[in-house]
Order: sequence, then C-alpha cells, then structure tokens
Amino acid sequence: MSALDLRTVIEGVGARLLALLQAADDRSEPVVRQASPDTLALAFQAAGAGLPIDRDQAPTGTPALLAAVDEVLRWSVRTLHPRFFNQNFAGADPVAVLGDWVGAALNTTQATFEAAPVFTLMEREVIAGLAARAGFATHEGLFLPGGSMANLHALQLARWRAQPDSLRTGKVPGRLVAFTSAEAHYSLGKAMALLGLGSDNLVAVPTGPDGGMDVVALDKAIRQARRRQERPFFINATAGTTVRAAFDPLRDLADVADFHDLWLHVDGAFGASALFSGRERHRMRGVARAHSLAWNLHKMVGATQQCAAFLVREPGLLGRVFGGGADYLFQPDKPHAGLDSGDLTYHCARRVDALKAWLLWKARGDAGLGARVERAVDLAEHAEGRILADDRFALAAARGFTNVLFWWVPPDLRPLDLEAPGVAPRLHRITTALKDRMQRDGQTMLSYMPLGERPNALRLLCLNPATTPADVDHVLALIDGYGQALPRPV
Amino acid sequence: MSALDLRTVIEGVGARLLALLQAADDRSEPVVRQASPDTLALAFQAAGAGLPIDRDQAPTGTPALLAAVDEVLRWSVRTLHPRFFNQNFAGADPVAVLGDWVGAALNTTQATFEAAPVFTLMEREVIAGLAARAGFATHEGLFLPGGSMANLHALQLARWRAQPDSLRTGKVPGRLVAFTSAEAHYSLGKAMALLGLGSDNLVAVPTGPDGGMDVVALDKAIRQARRRQERPFFINATAGTTVRAAFDPLRDLADVADFHDLWLHVDGAFGASALFSGRERHRMRGVARAHSLAWNLHKMVGATQQCAAFLVREPGLLGRVFGGGADYLFQPDKPHAGLDSGDLTYHCARRVDALKAWLLWKARGDAGLGARVERAVDLAEHAEGRILADDRFALAAARGFTNVLFWWVPPDLRPLDLEAPGVAPRLHRITTALKDRMQRDGQTMLSYMPLGERPNALRLLCLNPATTPADVDHVLALIDGYGQALPRPV
Repeated sequence: MSALDLRTVIEGVGARLLALLQAADDRSEPVVRQASPDTLALAFQAAGAGLPIDRDQAPTGTPALLAAVDEVLRWSVRTLHPRFFNQNFAGADPVAVLGDWVGAALNTTQATFEAAPVFTLMEREVIAGLAARAGFATHEGLFLPGGSMANLHALQLARWRAQPDSLRTGKVPGRLVAFTSAEAHYSLGKAMALLGLGSDNLVAVPTGPDGGMDVVALDKAIRQARRRQERPFFINATAGTTVRAAFDPLRDLADVADFHDLWLHVDGAFGASALFSGRERHRMRGVARAHSLAWNLHKMVGATQQCAAFLVREPGLLGRVFGGGADYLFQPDKPHAGLDSGDLTYHCARRVDALKAWLLWKARGDAGLGARVERAVDLAEHAEGRILADDRFALAAARGFTNVLFWWVPPDLRPLDLEAPGVAPRLHRITTALKDRMQRDGQTMLSYMPLGERPNALRLLCLNPATTPADVDHVLALIDGYGQALPRPV
Repeated sequence: MSALDLRTVIEGVGARLLALLQAADDRSEPVVRQASPDTLALAFQAAGAGLPIDRDQAPTGTPALLAAVDEVLRWSVRTLHPRFFNQNFAGADPVAVLGDWVGAALNTTQATFEAAPVFTLMEREVIAGLAARAGFATHEGLFLPGGSMANLHALQLARWRAQPDSLRTGKVPGRLVAFTSAEAHYSLGKAMALLGLGSDNLVAVPTGPDGGMDVVALDKAIRQARRRQERPFFINATAGTTVRAAFDPLRDLADVADFHDLWLHVDGAFGASALFSGRERHRMRGVARAHSLAWNLHKMVGATQQCAAFLVREPGLLGRVFGGGADYLFQPDKPHAGLDSGDLTYHCARRVDALKAWLLWKARGDAGLGARVERAVDLAEHAEGRILADDRFALAAARGFTNVLFWWVPPDLRPLDLEAPGVAPRLHRITTALKDRMQRDGQTMLSYMPLGERPNALRLLCLNPATTPADVDHVLALIDGYGQALPRPV
C-alpha cells in the first residue's frame, strides 16, 4: 500500500461531506457549474490528480487526493439543491445518505443471512411494509438494482407462468406478446429484447388524454393478438409515467388481465409512492390485484440511488424461477438459511439497499414520506397555476400528478396558438436553446421532454422538500430571462 | 417531515463511521456476534426502533434512530476485520468506502454527462485503464451492478452476433448452445434461463486437476453440438473460479473460439485483478483476445460492493445491442451527449461506481492494487504450507492461486486416508459442525464449499491486506480448537 495518510483522508472527506449535507439547501451555490470535458480535465490536472489513469498509475499523495475530491464536489451536479428539477429524483433525504454510508462501511452482500443478518431481516420488514401499503394479501420480494431490473424480473416470471419448462429448454411454442402503454418506460422494450422475446412483441397501447392506458384499446389489442394465434401473456401497467407522471387505470387493467388470464405487472417505479399519502393513494387503486409491482424509493421519497423494491403477490415464485441452486452459496444446513434471499433473483451479491430504506422509513414515518409526495403535488399545482395565469408560458400537456410540462412563449407568439403555421417547430427550437442557456447559467436545472407530435417541453417536478413556491416562481422568472436573452429569431 | 434533529443524526452517524474505519484492524472485536432473528428483533426493540415497519409507522426520534444505527453496527458482520475470510471479498479499502460516501451524498445517475459530468469522464478513464491492463487493442465498457450482469450482457451480445434480428423478433432458428467449465459461476446457467436461451443449452465442460477447463473436451463438445445441428455461439472462460480460484487456459480457449468462430467471454469477476500484478498476470495470458471481460474491483482489490466493470473489445456493439433510444433521456442535441453511457446497457439509472474505482486506483496506484493481489497469494501459500506440514489438517484440493481448501482431521483419522470406509461422510459432517461452532464463537469466519464428490471443505482466502501470517496461524489454531471441542463421534 502507498504511504497515503488514511486518517487525514478519512477525516478530510468526512468533514467535506458532513458540510455538504448540512448545507444542502444553500441557494447561494449554483446547481451546476457548466464545464466541458476539457475544463474538467484541466481542473483535475491542476489538482494534482489528472482524470486519466496513467500507464503505470503511481499512488497519489494525500493532498492531491483531497484536492481531487474537492474537484468532484465542485463540478458535480448538486441534486440536493432546492432548484434542481432535472430528474425524477431530487433532494435525497440525509437519513438515506447516511444509510448508504453505513452500508458502504460495513460492505457486505445482501445474499445470505450469514453475511448480512441485520440487513436480511430489514429487507424482509421493508418489503412486508411496502406489500401492506399495496394491499397485497400475500407477498414476497426484495430490492433490485433499479426499476428496469424489476420490470425484467416481472416479465421472466410471466414467461415462466406461460411456459414453465422454457427456463430449461429456451423454447416457447408460438409467439408470446406483451402489452404496455405508449407512454411506458423504455425498459419494457429493452427487456423484451434482453429476454429473447423480441421487442417487436411488445404492443404499445394508445393512451387517453390524461396519459393513462386506453383500456378498450388494450382489450381490443389482446383479442386481435389472439386471433392472429399469438399468445398474450403480460400486461405492464405504468403508475407514474416518465414524461407526464400519468397513471394507468389499474382496476380496469386488472379486470382485463383477469379476463384474459394474463400476468399484470405494475411499474410503479415513480408513482407507487403515492401509496404513502392518504390523499394521493387513490391513484394506485387496484394495485392489490397486480401479480407484481416495481416501486423505487429513490424517486419520490428521497432514498439515494438505488433503492428499487420488487414485490410479487404469490410467495414461492421467485425461488422457483430465479433459483440457481449454487450449493457453495446457499447451503440449507446453515443456520437460518431459509431467510437467504440470494436465490430469489438473477443477481448474486446485492448491495444492502434495504438498510437505507429501513432507516428512512423509521425516521420519517408514513406521514413524512406521504408529506413528501403531497408537497410535490402541491408545488406542481402551484407551478401550473402560475403558468396558466401568465401568457409568457403555456402548459404543454394536462397535469395529473407531479409533472408540469410547459413552454416558454416568445413575445410575438403570445397568447400561444400552437396550430398556427411554423409555431410548433419554433417552440421546439426555443426549448432546446433555452435549456442550453439554463445549463450554462447553472442556477437551476430542468430537463426537456418529447411529447409525441408536440414540440419538446420543459418538465418541472419538485421532489425536494426544501423547494418552496418561491423557488418555483424564481425559476419561472429565470426561464423568462433565458428566453428573453435568446437571439431573435430562434 | 418529522422533528428529527438532522444535525445530531448526521454528526452522530458520521462519528461512528469514522471510528469504524479508523479501527478496522482492531482484533479485539469479534468478526460477528452470532444472533438469531429473535435476538436481533429484541435488540432493535430495546433500542426503541423495532425491526418491523409498523402499520402506520410513526417517525422515530433522534436518540432511537442513533441507537438503531448502533445495533446495526453491533450485529453486522465485520468484513473489515483481519480475520474475516468468509467471502471472496474482505477488508474494503477506506478510500473506496469514502468514494461510495461521496457518490451517495451527491446522489446522481451515471446515465448522462449532463447529470454526471465528472463521473462520466471517470468511468471512461477507468474503463480505458482496465482495457489497457487487459491488452485490448480497442474497447468500450462501463460499470454494471455485479458480475452476473456483466455475464448476462456478454451472452446477449453473443446472441445478437449470432442472430442480429433476434432483438426485434425474439426468434433464433435452431438451438444456440453455450459452453462453460463445470466449475464456472452459477450465473451462467441463470443467464441462459433469463435470456430465454434455456439453461439446458449451457454445456458444462469438464475441468482438469487444476480446476481449469479441459480444452480438448471443449473442442469435442463443440464438434458434437455441431453434429447434432446445434448452433454453438458462446464460450465462457472463467478466470478465478468461486471455489478454487482456478483459471481456465485463456490462450487455448481463444484458439478454440477463433477456430469455431464463437464469442469468447472471460468471467474474470474474481481473477482479472491478477492483471494488476506483474508477478501474477501470466494467469490472464490470452485475455486480450477475448470479445468481452467481466472484472469486479470489489473482490480482490478492495472496492466496496458494487464495482463491476464490463469490457467489450469491439466499440459500438453495446449501443447497437442495448440502445433503447429513449428520446426523453438521450437527446443528441444536448451538449456532449455523445459521452452518455445510458444507452450502452440494459440499465437506466446506474450508481456512480466509477468514482470509487477511480479514487482507489489513483490512491493506491497499480503497485498498490497489485500488492494486494500478491499478498493474498502469499498468505494462501503460507496457509497451504502450514496445512501440509500438520496432520491435524489436510488439503482438500490443489491450490493454484488465492483459495486454500482444507479439512480439519479428527485425531483418530490422522494421517487422513480419504478412501478409507466412512471417512468422507464423516469429514463432511465435521466440516459443517465446525463451521457452526466457528460462527457461534465469532472470532473468525470462513465458508465451506462443495467439491464435487469430495466432502465439503473449508475455504480460506486472505483478501484483507491487514491480515498477517500470524492471523492465519491463529485461525488454524482456532479451528483446531473448534474441532477438538466437537462432541465425539461426529
């Protein structure tokens, strides 16, 4: 080992991070310092620890290592900042951050009770708690590295149900077809490709005006597939779509799934957290009838990346479908081996994501997590009100939940008439140019989103509980400023 | 939010963790305090934060939350302890732990340059550095949540190569067959099932006395498959098997792969880190000819869970096979969008595992990482010498690298004659009983491993650089003590 002064490094990084967490809501810092790859390369070079790994990389001394950490902190996006709106997560709860720290320091794998006694029990309790909130009468489940993995596991369970011996043979007579809404997450198509089912065999069902799946169209699509001798096997319902945060009508979808005897998976990666709120949980009505549910605590309720729960209603399926039977790992004669989770998933070692989920839930309670969700909806309502009342902006899509989609409208197009010739392409260009200015300025970050045939729109969703209505007003004013500063004509 | 005193929680947990890292090599603490689920439930209850999530979970106050963290620390396995030998990782480098902490505090996703400018560049540099060590003339790659995911990605790339339109259609005419050694990781079979290729279509090729794949047997198996009109498409070579840390002969396998035009993947999750050591890297000779490589930095060189690199020799394949084309996420008109990694994998959001890899490599240099590998081999050699010189123990398999497999031999069986009637089953029972005593005592942790038709054996591998030869001697003495204390006859 090198002569690194570990004590100084540990204390130095620890102090920097504690200061970062304590000052999370400091609005005087920018959200991001815009930098090109070249700028970043120079900054690390100047710190004494260049970004490239050298041919025979020499050990870096203590001061340079700490300086490099300073550069990391300086140039990284501050997702803790109350004016960071760029992703469908923001403002991680410091309790969850600490949970991650404890997990990293203890550095074990979630796979067995032997290696992770406390975390094994915590995972079971958190999963049971989530299952209870979803109203599952029975359940099993675990944390996976991301909602995409949860969707993948759900599809594999459904294929197994349709053709149990396919795990061994790789053969499924006929053509399995899955259904999801046209606004669903792109992981569904990728999962079909990865599973060898083929992305062409995912049917994109049209959505209604609120962004939810059109159930009549779904039923029709299933019947058509049957007439073509295809084998429908899986419906993905989305609870909280990426762009509009729309909810599919879960009860209606459950009826369709029951009627046609299909697996119903709910991709609630974003929206399932509505279940924490008495006021908002009606959006999830029907989820108790789903066969499986993806639910990311790292999106709406402030856990850190990653904290993605996967729940299955019928116990025993996960082991049957994902059990690899590795006898060197899962030995039935070890104490409490029945609690081992490693054989319930494709993964082998897993991080102990359950720990931060448990700490977060214990610290905040259902009320605290629910308040986070409600606050996001309240702020969206506030933003929507401002936008509707101000012809410098225009709402780009109906809002149902937390996501506000809008355009900044240049003076000569006010009030906006989207149908007028040339207007849509101009708005599209303006949104892109405006995002670019915003990014350079670094006072706030919003992303822009495609909206089918409509121009790209800015997406505001306020998931940081430190964000206030005044922040929203301030950001709209900033955006108006960026718009006014655009060169004419865009 | 609850009235949690965040400042106290942050400072309290921070202080506990800094103390834990500073005292990582404290041998006066046990490796584990053995506890049943009931004991753990009572301990958390007594701390004021019971393990179950209550029906309407109330927020937990500051003192109870800190007390719960104390219980987590008290009852978790100390994988930092110099006498923890239970897994194929141990003694995480504090620099990597700090890297995880920084990543958690900044809480972003690795998917885009916009959201992770610094980490995007770091990931590219670390991947480039690993590719250089492997001798790849060209490369692309990224970090994935675990070696199993890397193996899965490799198989999918190989299927695409065999049948490009299968991503869309889900159809592959004929029967694709993959080959791996009988001692390979169980994720290969699971991956075949998950990909819809069928676990039956994975051929387990016999291994030689050193645990490496028998190349003649491989070639024969491929020819036989061809004669059966099957379609061989993939060879998995293992560099560092789970039980014996055996290396398949990569050059020979590359010859076979070339001759039959198959994808050659090297599962170097454990063993690829030999490349850091001038003395040990000969084991990886031939890896430069592989099409892809899995390489976990969280096993031999002290990164925390998870830090699993996946390298592909031919640039451009990952995007073609895994690109989902989500237009809301990967927008080509954003600055530096060409650096976005999100479309190179099945995953969407990824943790910034590259950060800790970068910090670790910069801090320790190639020499530091290589020294870690060499030390593990040296300690294995030391342990092997002790075992060979002492008839209280017997070597259970030839040692090639870091893993020492051995039995404790009861007095009446010394010197051990494994072929004598009744001996093998007795050794099997003794190993299990001994492991149980060891676990209760908590002074050390080793796992036991299956060895085909031989009795289960204890596996010692010394991956913590704080472990000394004296620790190895001490642990052997402990094991002899556990053995002597077993009730007779076992």
